[in-house]
Amino acid sequence: MGSDVVDMKLSEMNKETLEQFLADCKAQYLDFQAENLKLDMSRGKPSPKQLDLSLDMIDCLKRDDYKAANGLDCRNYGVLDGLPEAKEFFSNMLGVDPSNVMVFGNSSLNIMYWAMSVAMTNGVLGGEPWSKLPKVKFLCPVPGYDRHFAVSEYFGMEMVNIPMNEDGPDMDMIEKLVAEDDSIKGVWCVPMYSNPGGVVYSDEVIKRFAALKPKAKDFRIFWDNAYCVHHLVDNPPVQANLMEEAKKVGNEDICYMFASTSKITFPGNGIAVMAASDKNLACLKKSLGFATIGYDKINQLRHLRFFDDNFENLIKHMKKHKDLIAPKFAIVENTLESELKELGIANWSNPQGGYFISFNQAGCAKRIVSLCKEAGVVLTGAGASFPYGKDPLDENIRLSPTFPTEEELQKAMNVFVCSAKIAAAEKLMG
Amino acid sequence: MGSDVVDMKLSEMNKETLEQFLADCKAQYLDFQAENLKLDMSRGKPSPKQLDLSLDMIDCLKRDDYKAANGLDCRNYGVLDGLPEAKEFFSNMLGVDPSNVMVFGNSSLNIMYWAMSVAMTNGVLGGEPWSKLPKVKFLCPVPGYDRHFAVSEYFGMEMVNIPMNEDGPDMDMIEKLVAEDDSIKGVWCVPMYSNPGGVVYSDEVIKRFAALKPKAKDFRIFWDNAYCVHHLVDNPPVQANLMEEAKKVGNEDICYMFASTSKITFPGNGIAVMAASDKNLACLKKSLGFATIGYDKINQLRHLRFFDDNFENLIKHMKKHKDLIAPKFAIVENTLESELKELGIANWSNPQGGYFISFNQAGCAKRIVSLCKEAGVVLTGAGASFPYGKDPLDENIRLSPTFPTEEELQKAMNVFVCSAKIAAAEKLMG
Repeated sequence: MGSDVVDMKLSEMNKETLEQFLADCKAQYLDFQAENLKLDMSRGKPSPKQLDLSLDMIDCLKRDDYKAANGLDCRNYGVLDGLPEAKEFFSNMLGVDPSNVMVFGNSSLNIMYWAMSVAMTNGVLGGEPWSKLPKVKFLCPVPGYDRHFAVSEYFGMEMVNIPMNEDGPDMDMIEKLVAEDDSIKGVWCVPMYSNPGGVVYSDEVIKRFAALKPKAKDFRIFWDNAYCVHHLVDNPPVQANLMEEAKKVGNEDICYMFASTSKITFPGNGIAVMAASDKNLACLKKSLGFATIGYDKINQLRHLRFFDDNFENLIKHMKKHKDLIAPKFAIVENTLESELKELGIANWSNPQGGYFISFNQAGCAKRIVSLCKEAGVVLTGAGASFPYGKDPLDENIRLSPTFPTEEELQKAMNVFVCSAKIAAAEKLMG
Repeated sequence: MGSDVVDMKLSEMNKETLEQFLADCKAQYLDFQAENLKLDMSRGKPSPKQLDLSLDMIDCLKRDDYKAANGLDCRNYGVLDGLPEAKEFFSNMLGVDPSNVMVFGNSSLNIMYWAMSVAMTNGVLGGEPWSKLPKVKFLCPVPGYDRHFAVSEYFGMEMVNIPMNEDGPDMDMIEKLVAEDDSIKGVWCVPMYSNPGGVVYSDEVIKRFAALKPKAKDFRIFWDNAYCVHHLVDNPPVQANLMEEAKKVGNEDICYMFASTSKITFPGNGIAVMAASDKNLACLKKSLGFATIGYDKINQLRHLRFFDDNFENLIKHMKKHKDLIAPKFAIVENTLESELKELGIANWSNPQGGYFISFNQAGCAKRIVSLCKEAGVVLTGAGASFPYGKDPLDENIRLSPTFPTEEELQKAMNVFVCSAKIAAAEKLMG
C-alpha cells in the first residue's frame, strides 16, 4: 500500500511531494491492473453464504402442506392481497395492524412501480390520473436509490433533489415545497439505513413527514423500508413508525409503506409487502383486482413455515446475516480509514445497518469509478444515486460490500483507495 | 327430473300444457331449494384432484438444486426476463423461437395488465402513450373473458363488441374497423377454446389477424393462448401460429402472445409467459427493467424439474387433466341434451378443450342465474362475458364444470336445467 508515503493532507503537500505521491499511486495502480482482477461491488446483493442461511426455504414445505390456517387451498386461484397469516406475520415488520397489510409476490420494487403506475393511469383515491396532468414532480432525497428515481423518470416525472442531513431529508425544504406546489405528488424515502447514505431518519423527521400538509391531496410518501430489520450492530436504533405518527395527526392516508424479504431469504423468490391506511387499501385492492387474481400463496406459506410462523425467528435469522456481512463493512471502513483519512480528500458513512457505504470525494467520483473499472473493479456508476444520474458535485460513490468474499473485497478496496488517491492528486495538480 | 312431462318444443305448447309444465318445474325447483345446496360453478378453477396431479411441484426441487444451466444462482437477484432454459421450454408452448419468449411470475393476467399499462403510460414502440389520447378503443369478441374486458374498462377504453362466428371473430368487421379508425388500439383474443365459447379460431381467421393493417401503427393483438394445451379430446385440433403467419407477411410486431401454467400446475403459483417480435421484446424488456429486477427464478426451476425439462411431459400431464375433467364436461352436455334439447329453448357449445361451456337462451340469462342462486348454485354473473357486463340479448351464461365433484356438478346441472325451463316458460307466458 502507498500509505507509507505520507500522513499529511494532500492539499498541504508541495508540488514535488504531490508528484511523487501520484507517481507512487500510479505504479501501484499498474500492479493492480497486471493482476487482471474481476471484482464486482456494484449492487447490493447478498453473498452465496448469506443465501445458504435460507437453504431450508427450498424444501421446508412438505407435499401435504398447502392449506392456509383457514383451510384455503393455496395451490388454487384466489386471495388477492395475501394470506391472513402472512399479513399477520409481516405486520410485525411494518409495525402496523395486519388489516393494513397487503402481501404480494417477488420484489417490492415491482409493487412500488405498480402503485405509481396506478396513480398514473387511475389516480390516487379518486383523484385525477397523474398522466392527465401537465406536470408531475417527485421529491428525491439525495443521494438515494437509483431504481426509485428510475421509476419516476420512466413515468416522465420531474424529479426535485432534496439534500439529506444526518437525521434525514431537509424537512424545511420539503414542507415549504409541498405546501406551495400541487404538482408535487410524492417523495421517495428509505427511512432506515438509507440507500446509499445509511441515514436513520430521526423521530423528529418522521413526525414531520407524518404531519405534512401538501397542497396536492393525492401526495404520497413512498416509504421504502427495505432495511428495517437489516442491522449491523447489536443494539440497533429504534425508530418511530410513520403510519402510527400519521394516525395520531389524522393524516394516515399520506403514506404507502413497503418492505420485502428480498435480503432476508432469497432475492430471487421473495415476498413483497405494503401497508397503507384503510381508505388507501380499499382503493388499491380494487385496482389490484384488475391486475391479477392473486400472488404466489404457496411461497407465502413457504416463508411462514421457514420462520415457523414466528417473527422472532426472522429477527434471529437477520443476526446470522449480520455476522456474515458486518466484517465486510469493517473491511471497507478500515481500509478507507487507514488509507484515506489523513489525506483529507474524502468522507464516508459508517452505517449501523443496510447494504451500503456512501463515499464522497468532490469532483472525483467519475474518475474513481473509471479508474476502478480499468483495473477490473466494477462499482455502481458515478451519479447513479442522483436523479437523471447527475451528481451535481460529482462526488458520490455507493459501495456495496456484501457480495464479494472478504478476500475479494479487500482487494477491491485496495484498488478503490488507490484510485481515489490518484483522482485526488490529479485534481489538485489541475 | 321433469323431462317426462313433454318432449315437444316449448313454443309449440298450448297455454294449459305450458302452465302445467311451469307448475311441474316450480315444484321440482322448490324441492331443490329445500336441499339447501351450496354449489359453485362460477369460475374456471381446477379441482383439488387436478391440483393433486402436480403435488410433486411442492417438493421436486432439492435443496442443492438452485443453479440454472449456465451456473447462475437462482436464489439471488437478476435475470429480468426468465431463465434461458425456461424460455426454451415454454417456446414449445407458444410455438415461437426461444429468443422471442419472456418468462415471468404468477399470472398471465398480470402480464397482460402490465403490457397494457405500459402502453397507457409509455406507449407502444415509441408511440404516443395511450393515456394521452382523447379516446382509445379496444375490440372485444363476444362472448369473451370478463377479466380481459375489465382491464380495458379500468384503463378507460371504449370497448367495441365483435360477434364471434364458429371459426373465430367476425374478421370482415375487424378488418374494416381497424383500417378506418386509428383510435382502435387492439383486440382481445383467446384463439383456442375461447372463453367461454370454446371456439377454435380457424387458420383462415388467424392468417387474417396476422395480415391486419390497422390505421393505428401501435395496434396490438392481445393473443391470450390460455388453453393452448388444454384439450378435452384425443385428437385435438392443430392450429396455425399467429406469430409465424405474421412473420410471413412482415407483420410480426402486431402480436403480443400470452400463456401460463395456471391450469397446468398450480394456479396459485404458476408461471406466465409472453412472446413478441424482436422489436417489441426489446422495448418491453426496457420497460420491464423499471418494474422489477426479476421474477421468481426458483419457481421457474421448480417447473422445469417437475417436467424433467421435457415439454412432452407437460403434454402427457395435460392428458391426466383431461381424464379428470372430460367426464365433467360430459355431465353438463348430457344433462343439457337430455333435458333441454327437445324443448328448443336454448343452445350451447360442446367444446374440444378449455374450461367452459357457453350456454345461450335469449332473454333468460339473468333470470336463470338468479333462480340458480336462490337454489344455492352460484354461476358466473349473467352478462359477465360482455364488455361492461351488458349482454345485449341477455342470453349468455358461462358454465364452468371443472371445480365441483361429478356428484355436485350433476346436482348443480339439475338445478340449472330446471331454472332454464322455468325462465323459458315464464317468458313465453309473458
